[in-house]
Amino acid sequence: MTAAPETVTPDDAFHVFDTTLRDGAQREGINLTVADKLAIARHLDDFGVGFIEGGWPGANPRDTEFFERAAREIDFRHARLVAFGATRKAGGTAAADPQVAALLASGAPVVTLVAKSHDRHVELALRTTLEENLAMVRDTVAHLREHGRRVFVDCEHFFDGYRANPEYAKAVVRAAHEAGADVVVLCDTNGGMLPAQVTAVVRTVLADTGARLGIHAQDDTGCAVANTLAAVDAGATHVQCTANGYGERVGNSNLFPVVAALELKYGKRVLPDGALEEMTRISHAIAEVVNLTPSTHQPYVGVSAFAHKAGLHASAIKVDPDLYQHIDPELVGNTMRMLVSDMAGRASIELKGKELGYDLSGDRALAGRVVERVKERELRGYTYEAADASFELLLIDEVRGTAERFFRVESWRAIVEQRPDGAQVNEATVKLWAKGERIVATGEGNGPVDALDRALRQGLERIYPQLARMELVDYKVRILEGRHGTESTTRVLIATGDGRTEWSTVGVGENVIAASWQALEDAYTYGLFQAGVTPQD
Amino acid sequence: MTAAPETVTPDDAFHVFDTTLRDGAQREGINLTVADKLAIARHLDDFGVGFIEGGWPGANPRDTEFFERAAREIDFRHARLVAFGATRKAGGTAAADPQVAALLASGAPVVTLVAKSHDRHVELALRTTLEENLAMVRDTVAHLREHGRRVFVDCEHFFDGYRANPEYAKAVVRAAHEAGADVVVLCDTNGGMLPAQVTAVVRTVLADTGARLGIHAQDDTGCAVANTLAAVDAGATHVQCTANGYGERVGNSNLFPVVAALELKYGKRVLPDGALEEMTRISHAIAEVVNLTPSTHQPYVGVSAFAHKAGLHASAIKVDPDLYQHIDPELVGNTMRMLVSDMAGRASIELKGKELGYDLSGDRALAGRVVERVKERELRGYTYEAADASFELLLIDEVRGTAERFFRVESWRAIVEQRPDGAQVNEATVKLWAKGERIVATGEGNGPVDALDRALRQGLERIYPQLARMELVDYKVRILEGRHGTESTTRVLIATGDGRTEWSTVGVGENVIAASWQALEDAYTYGLFQAGVTPQD
Repeated sequence: MTAAPETVTPDDAFHVFDTTLRDGAQREGINLTVADKLAIARHLDDFGVGFIEGGWPGANPRDTEFFERAAREIDFRHARLVAFGATRKAGGTAAADPQVAALLASGAPVVTLVAKSHDRHVELALRTTLEENLAMVRDTVAHLREHGRRVFVDCEHFFDGYRANPEYAKAVVRAAHEAGADVVVLCDTNGGMLPAQVTAVVRTVLADTGARLGIHAQDDTGCAVANTLAAVDAGATHVQCTANGYGERVGNSNLFPVVAALELKYGKRVLPDGALEEMTRISHAIAEVVNLTPSTHQPYVGVSAFAHKAGLHASAIKVDPDLYQHIDPELVGNTMRMLVSDMAGRASIELKGKELGYDLSGDRALAGRVVERVKERELRGYTYEAADASFELLLIDEVRGTAERFFRVESWRAIVEQRPDGAQVNEATVKLWAKGERIVATGEGNGPVDALDRALRQGLERIYPQLARMELVDYKVRILEGRHGTESTTRVLIATGDGRTEWSTVGVGENVIAASWQALEDAYTYGLFQAGVTPQD
Repeated sequence: MTAAPETVTPDDAFHVFDTTLRDGAQREGINLTVADKLAIARHLDDFGVGFIEGGWPGANPRDTEFFERAAREIDFRHARLVAFGATRKAGGTAAADPQVAALLASGAPVVTLVAKSHDRHVELALRTTLEENLAMVRDTVAHLREHGRRVFVDCEHFFDGYRANPEYAKAVVRAAHEAGADVVVLCDTNGGMLPAQVTAVVRTVLADTGARLGIHAQDDTGCAVANTLAAVDAGATHVQCTANGYGERVGNSNLFPVVAALELKYGKRVLPDGALEEMTRISHAIAEVVNLTPSTHQPYVGVSAFAHKAGLHASAIKVDPDLYQHIDPELVGNTMRMLVSDMAGRASIELKGKELGYDLSGDRALAGRVVERVKERELRGYTYEAADASFELLLIDEVRGTAERFFRVESWRAIVEQRPDGAQVNEATVKLWAKGERIVATGEGNGPVDALDRALRQGLERIYPQLARMELVDYKVRILEGRHGTESTTRVLIATGDGRTEWSTVGVGENVIAASWQALEDAYTYGLFQAGVTPQD
């Protein structure tokens, strides 16, 4: 390897490289804001991947902004940030290429360069000669290395190219390797490969070039995970994946089953201690950020992944759970479920209570009542995974034996109006009781929820001045049971902050306004509890 | 092979065996009626699988009834019906076992017997001796053969059993083979295997026993399709799969990518002529019967499986579609789709226009204007990749040079009220102009958007009776720029149908009601264009 020795650390022997923010964002239905990208980067760093490919700086303002903000706002514990870009233009120099300059300007310590390795693509899509393409690879890699960047080279369409012209495909690998690329990544860009083919090609290329090899697999044959592992079997030491397999067309190789197989089946340590147990949570959290329902049947992390239905299985499982499970679900932060039963067992409620500072282990009846309430509410569409504060309120009610709160709602009304002159008016009125007093307040906002929020705060702030410090910081809507048009159930998640901390609440209703109102009520109730206020109606 | 020669036809050399109706039905969320099972069996037979495992006759009345009715009502063109059951009880005889008698009574020409092949399971779950288990296999297979049935034996937990006690696992294979089973199926019941392991085990068992081998893979490692192919690589000639990969926990090996790989990648003819082109349709039809939304990202058959988003890809695809597709989507009855997004350039707009029937290639200025409008609107939060109809309206406006529409909105208003008695009221009023007439209409609904929808339709239906056929079928909300609380931009996607087809529209606004209203306007405008109505204000 020609990699600069100073950048290679012992844990560098095997790379878990995530490209959710770049290739994953190509999935139909995903459209990430900079805030989304930052949130996902934090989750991936928590999970412990080695590299996070953040996007293509310079290609669009969003990706450029992401690199600026990520460097400033995220204190990465495990991951190194990677900028993606292309080799320089044909006929120019890397030093004078503005696209290459933008990669350096991003400040990312690592750059992945995409290079053509299929002779036909060089001619048809790049419209240059095979020799110039090699020069582009060499020149761009060398230029980035001179500027102190670590470089990985993605050989696009490698496997198709290898089939068409193996000598040229290998020449591209050699050019990248000899110019100083740490890893040359063989990409199955069209996703048409099968594992046995991948193993054979990777083995030959490794023997013939001596380059350190990585694998980038797409799932068009339904074999992306297997193809990734097939490359590892043949000696690849760098795997490119995306969270939940998001990506162009069918998707990319799914990070979660790949790392689970490496850790649990190969016995290879590729993540920090304890990370694998966070896998289910991280998978679901990333799905929330991209606003896609987590796949219930995803290997390892789906809610159905360890759900047992067959009577045959159920009775065997009573004898020994290992009889029908290939791993202990707790290893990946998932749980076994016997269907007909619920998701949240008493054990997990007790654990959750402990996490929040309530010891429920001594009171089985109390924990049982909480399980029942969670079960009943989740059936109606609530989710507590992403709404800690609403869960804690539910717990507080059961612990205190009362649902006494800081205020009581008599009624509310929101009006949204599009006027003939084009002006839009959003107005809300709330009628409340607090400390024995009846309050009527009206608020205007830029939407009905904002108007309700303002009316509620305006009515209560005089009595509870603590509310002045609190503000809504995030708001998410999901329609459940999508095939019933607007008659579906709506779930709203609200994040509220007071400058020191943030908390999340959930509301469910027949429509978005009613669901939002519930989440708002919980948000301010929790905020007041947390500020040390005592309920008194 | 000891298979009775009279039942072995030339196309018997490779078996495509479907177990959707038995193992697939174990999936969480699937609950099949007899009518559902009959409908699925017809689709599978149309598709041309060789064997359809219909259930366990005698185990429950539904499965018993299915076999009665399937024999009477379905004239199978390709498939043979298979009854699933277990080996006889320990300590008895097959001839006297009522469960075995029910298999014969089903009239199915083929029986799959499940047998234990893992020593620990024989002892823990079956509670008998290893020798008696072998006798149960021999006796039951021989009994069914004597009654003219073809027999396949499923060795449950074969791979785990082989790891624990390879000699015993192979002894079960030999017992089945020698008693007259046509195929012995190695089952990865817990789904924990990886392809390289499967290939190695199948190869050894084939060499050591001489039995004809099949494979039954579960998807717990995300490798079921690859594991199935890995067994074929090692000499298995019988693959057990389910439509869309339905099954216990994560699911079973997915029939569609398996047969597609065999036909298109291996060049093996395993289906009747023309069947593969029906694959996308059959996959979606079966999803409809089991009442699950077809997976958009399923290999080969998902609506996203050949959808292209990246501008880089789009310009290459214009040159040659094969550059970014591993197969021609028409081979599996699917189609290529260009997604319009801000990553797209003029090339993808031209392709998209062509897909919709507008030739933009001759007018670079027009295509350029469309690109600019798409970019400008996507910057404001619109997305066209999931809103074909809104994109087509934008295109129509540019092509026609006017935004003339079917109706003009003067104003609208929505009121959401939570009354003191707990009742919730949603009411909307719209004021419109259509065909020179001013219309004022009011609607009530279960939410503000539903109320607006009803008011709008009520107001317009007299003038445009075509609207009566249209209805909202899906509704999605996404809050953009999530870190600004309720001041964020809201994007709404609406799917509308008229019983024949569906179309999607997008709306963006400061709040969910305003965004929904825009998407509704586009939805009905597009519906009227499509119904052949001409705009006249």
